[in-house]
Amino acid sequence: MARDIAKQIGITMAADSFVDERLLEKVPRWRNYLEAKLGFRNHWYPVKFSNEIAEGEVVKAKLMGEEILLKRVDGKIFAIRDRCLHRGVKLSEKVECYTRSTITCWYHGFTYKWDSGTLCDIIASPKTPIIGKKKLRTYPVEEAKGLVFVFVGDDGLEPHSLSRDVPHFFLDDDMVVFGSSYMVRSNWRLGCENGIDDLHIYLHRQSPLIVNTQRSLPLGHTDRPDDYFELYEDADGPKGVGTRKFRDAKPMAYEGVVEGKVVVTGTKMHASPEEAARKRTTGHFVCLPGVLRVDNFPYVDHVQFEWYVPVSEDEHLYIITIGKRCVTEEERVEHEHQFIHRWKPNALEGFNNEDVFAREALQPFYNNDANWLEEVLVREDHGIVLWRELCHRHSTGVQKPSDIV
Amino acid sequence: MARDIAKQIGITMAADSFVDERLLEKVPRWRNYLEAKLGFRNHWYPVKFSNEIAEGEVVKAKLMGEEILLKRVDGKIFAIRDRCLHRGVKLSEKVECYTRSTITCWYHGFTYKWDSGTLCDIIASPKTPIIGKKKLRTYPVEEAKGLVFVFVGDDGLEPHSLSRDVPHFFLDDDMVVFGSSYMVRSNWRLGCENGIDDLHIYLHRQSPLIVNTQRSLPLGHTDRPDDYFELYEDADGPKGVGTRKFRDAKPMAYEGVVEGKVVVTGTKMHASPEEAARKRTTGHFVCLPGVLRVDNFPYVDHVQFEWYVPVSEDEHLYIITIGKRCVTEEERVEHEHQFIHRWKPNALEGFNNEDVFAREALQPFYNNDANWLEEVLVREDHGIVLWRELCHRHSTGVQKPSDIV
Amino acid sequence: MARDIAKQIGITMAADSFVDERLLEKVPRWRNYLEAKLGFRNHWYPVKFSNEIAEGEVVKAKLMGEEILLKRVDGKIFAIRDRCLHRGVKLSEKVECYTRSTITCWYHGFTYKWDSGTLCDIIASPKTPIIGKKKLRTYPVEEAKGLVFVFVGDDGLEPHSLSRDVPHFFLDDDMVVFGSSYMVRSNWRLGCENGIDDLHIYLHRQSPLIVNTQRSLPLGHTDRPDDYFELYEDADGPKGVGTRKFRDAKPMAYEGVVEGKVVVTGTKMHASPEEAARKRTTGHFVCLPGVLRVDNFPYVDHVQFEWYVPVSEDEHLYIITIGKRCVTEEERVEHEHQFIHRWKPNALEGFNNEDVFAREALQPFYNNDANWLEEVLVREDHGIVLWRELCHRHSTGVQKPSDIV
Repeated sequence: MARDIAKQIGITMAADSFVDERLLEKVPRWRNYLEAKLGFRNHWYPVKFSNEIAEGEVVKAKLMGEEILLKRVDGKIFAIRDRCLHRGVKLSEKVECYTRSTITCWYHGFTYKWDSGTLCDIIASPKTPIIGKKKLRTYPVEEAKGLVFVFVGDDGLEPHSLSRDVPHFFLDDDMVVFGSSYMVRSNWRLGCENGIDDLHIYLHRQSPLIVNTQRSLPLGHTDRPDDYFELYEDADGPKGVGTRKFRDAKPMAYEGVVEGKVVVTGTKMHASPEEAARKRTTGHFVCLPGVLRVDNFPYVDHVQFEWYVPVSEDEHLYIITIGKRCVTEEERVEHEHQFIHRWKPNALEGFNNEDVFAREALQPFYNNDANWLEEVLVREDHGIVLWRELCHRHSTGVQKPSDIV
Repeated sequence: MARDIAKQIGITMAADSFVDERLLEKVPRWRNYLEAKLGFRNHWYPVKFSNEIAEGEVVKAKLMGEEILLKRVDGKIFAIRDRCLHRGVKLSEKVECYTRSTITCWYHGFTYKWDSGTLCDIIASPKTPIIGKKKLRTYPVEEAKGLVFVFVGDDGLEPHSLSRDVPHFFLDDDMVVFGSSYMVRSNWRLGCENGIDDLHIYLHRQSPLIVNTQRSLPLGHTDRPDDYFELYEDADGPKGVGTRKFRDAKPMAYEGVVEGKVVVTGTKMHASPEEAARKRTTGHFVCLPGVLRVDNFPYVDHVQFEWYVPVSEDEHLYIITIGKRCVTEEERVEHEHQFIHRWKPNALEGFNNEDVFAREALQPFYNNDANWLEEVLVREDHGIVLWRELCHRHSTGVQKPSDIV
Repeated sequence: MARDIAKQIGITMAADSFVDERLLEKVPRWRNYLEAKLGFRNHWYPVKFSNEIAEGEVVKAKLMGEEILLKRVDGKIFAIRDRCLHRGVKLSEKVECYTRSTITCWYHGFTYKWDSGTLCDIIASPKTPIIGKKKLRTYPVEEAKGLVFVFVGDDGLEPHSLSRDVPHFFLDDDMVVFGSSYMVRSNWRLGCENGIDDLHIYLHRQSPLIVNTQRSLPLGHTDRPDDYFELYEDADGPKGVGTRKFRDAKPMAYEGVVEGKVVVTGTKMHASPEEAARKRTTGHFVCLPGVLRVDNFPYVDHVQFEWYVPVSEDEHLYIITIGKRCVTEEERVEHEHQFIHRWKPNALEGFNNEDVFAREALQPFYNNDANWLEEVLVREDHGIVLWRELCHRHSTGVQKPSDIV
């Protein structure tokens, strides 16, 4: 009844949400997505590259609004909340690790175990009864393919397999990835949506990557078959939206027309049809909790995996990796060499910087939650709609203000 | 009934307003004015000088919280909203004009006609059905006296004549004006109120303009006839508050007294009474949407027109112009010369800089909406009260949050 | 009934409070303290040292969110609100004092008496009827021990004796104090709580003061007698919480243990037991409105008095003084010499800088009002709880938003 009165008089009840209830009610099919300003809980997120955390090193990260600390002990990485239980100061203000398996707060000597978060000692008050009875929040950690993944989950929930939170093929034995990360001044959802946006190739028409790889790049698309998108909703796999192989399936526009005249052209290589086809991006797949795979990109036989990791309301960590199947050590070394000297400058910091520009330009509009209802999506934005609805259906918990108190 | 309950329990309903309903209710006679933090809609506002927009140039402006873009095509200026319909990015992030009559969004190639705002093409998606069916907001533009005026109006409303939004005489054929503009860190209403403030001449007592023009300047006024102010509310003319010619009508105070002793004096020139009278400011007139005329100022036979154009809650564009009636080209050239070498340094940037200082000093207090009810106006502030009430009565629409979404 | 409905539907009524009603209701025993983000009214607060205000000088200060102006006239200091009644500008934007006993607003010449705040003249409008009928807020001022105290009180309330708002002994005839002040980026309550925190000595274990004074400093405490704290609630004295002399009464921990091993040690001087006891801090006392006395600190026969003066929600002025009983002028001179060359660098800016670091580290957590309910206090924080409850019981008025409008 209380809620009824509130509704009747047009008032939003004080709720544990980053987004106003009145807006959420207007998008029943993707309400959880609109609410997930700081991301979805109960997922694995990469926060660092493995080589950014040396043995014994303590490193800070911010994930979904939570400040965390990571430490590598005997090779294994542990993660705890960077906030003393006692009076809320950050342990990272002055890191004190008297033993390998503990961290001590600089203020009163509250000491926690890295593995369990247990408050095992208080130096300034060694006999106080709460010792051994309280725990700092801990986060499961897994390393894979040179990335450090952290699970942000509800208390008592056993984390599911990492394979459910990464695109297919990423964990394949012969897949070798190299990458880099960038802090972007936009919400993580704008990262995803730009990533799967079929039309934003217009933005990349002068990218150095196109010339460097001698590939074709149209300006857009003229139409699309009805069965172009495919939903992935198997219980055991990643939940996502993919495109079917779009070679030949998606008519492309190489000529940009304004008022009936061609005013700009895409890049169409005068290669054999076979070579052109071979060099074409062949599809993409986006899945929860916000990671994209692009096939045959940035080059033949390569695949790009990239994450949009929620940091704060207006920041995400953009982790870009380039994967390639390598069997021998020589292939691995050659792939690394190419990554450093070709793909990092041309793809990550050539092509993808243009995406960063776009996402940061989107932020002022979407920063106003109400504007999510003011956009004017077109037919070709259908993939974005499918993605929002899929996130809504498979939400395992929206990050709420009470989660980051 | 919903509103009744809300009121009964002391809660302000979520409203489309920049100002709390509870405050507005306390000032029924000038409620619209208190609410018009971003100005009044359905008026002409100057945003640039004509010579700031060359043929073919695209220029940004911000008016009443709305970001707009202007372009001059074949001499005529067009104005559109600087925000793509599709996903809300600013067109100005990267201006792309493939044809003279269109502008294209850098992100997906959404292309709009400058004149109508019509979405005429989408480069990345040339066949999508919404082409031709959506429009970007456009703004009527008029140029007069070297100023570019933009009409911020409701959809479908035909703009009224510019003559209703400028003081009398400004559009007279022989009136020649030169001016300059300054961004001021205060709300536009504080600009108006300082402009028509009878007592603020105290602030200007040491202004270089006084010496430069050898005119008298009292420190204040001792009293005022009852019929000192005149209201202008004709349907066809500007709505405003003017003073009657106050030569002799307003006793002046040249001696500043504190605790019975003269502690400061105004400037009283020892000229003949005729010359003193001739050099005196003879009246002022302020009208909607926030423009002031000062007669016989800054000098004999000159008239100052100045606008306080709402930009954001705490900024206005202060456009100052000095007008003089000129019949011959020689007179025009001489007036321009005097403007550049005498009035710009001495009046605009000597005298009026002191006003800018005062308005910016007012901002912290009035930035708190509740403080509009805490001020202690005196009898001599009557003109300000009349102005607020006139704005309330003749409001043609307050700029609301939904207008700038 | 209105309040009942509001409560029933979970809505906080618009209230004149810096803190949400729903939080306040959860801490009935220290509700006033939680609400006193800007301090308690009707108390004496130091804002300057006497030597910071020379004869005739006008000086600004900010206290409990209120901007004030101080002036010394014929040796006596007066304090008024730094905001003109008329239109709210700060008098300090351009100080104009035409007579010794008045200050004039630079904008319209509103002139106020320093002693009474009376609007005695308006230069620009010398005959307006409100002259003599309005008053600017004034603040009683007292000087003691080289500090300038200001009373922030309710209208019409006669200030009580300064002796009720300072620790015992501070006003004793033979007590001579020297000190310095520092702006700290934390709420004033975090200053108090760190000051009386029995366990935070852990933080100081490497302080240069310890070596310099060759005193012992344990890392913490192992237990405490039940009658360790004493409440001071006499009507005529300061309201505070003190410790009984804790020589021998409080078992100390000199060895810091983590996982069963000693990992860090406190400083234990190998002096005679008598000398060790002589050099020990012997107690502390904190009282309203936020001032601490530490006995036998920073050295034998010295006493530290320090204030945490509320400035804004996230700033307090930290005034530290070192007192010593001096009978002769030689003793006074020697004490001043020691203060400048020994205690200022080693105590104030050696030892107490560590406290400033801690308080500023507390601020992000406690800045979120809800987090006051999320802390995990331990048994040894009992003194902090007693202090909060005492403040609640003896509150003479919480500073509210309406007080600083």
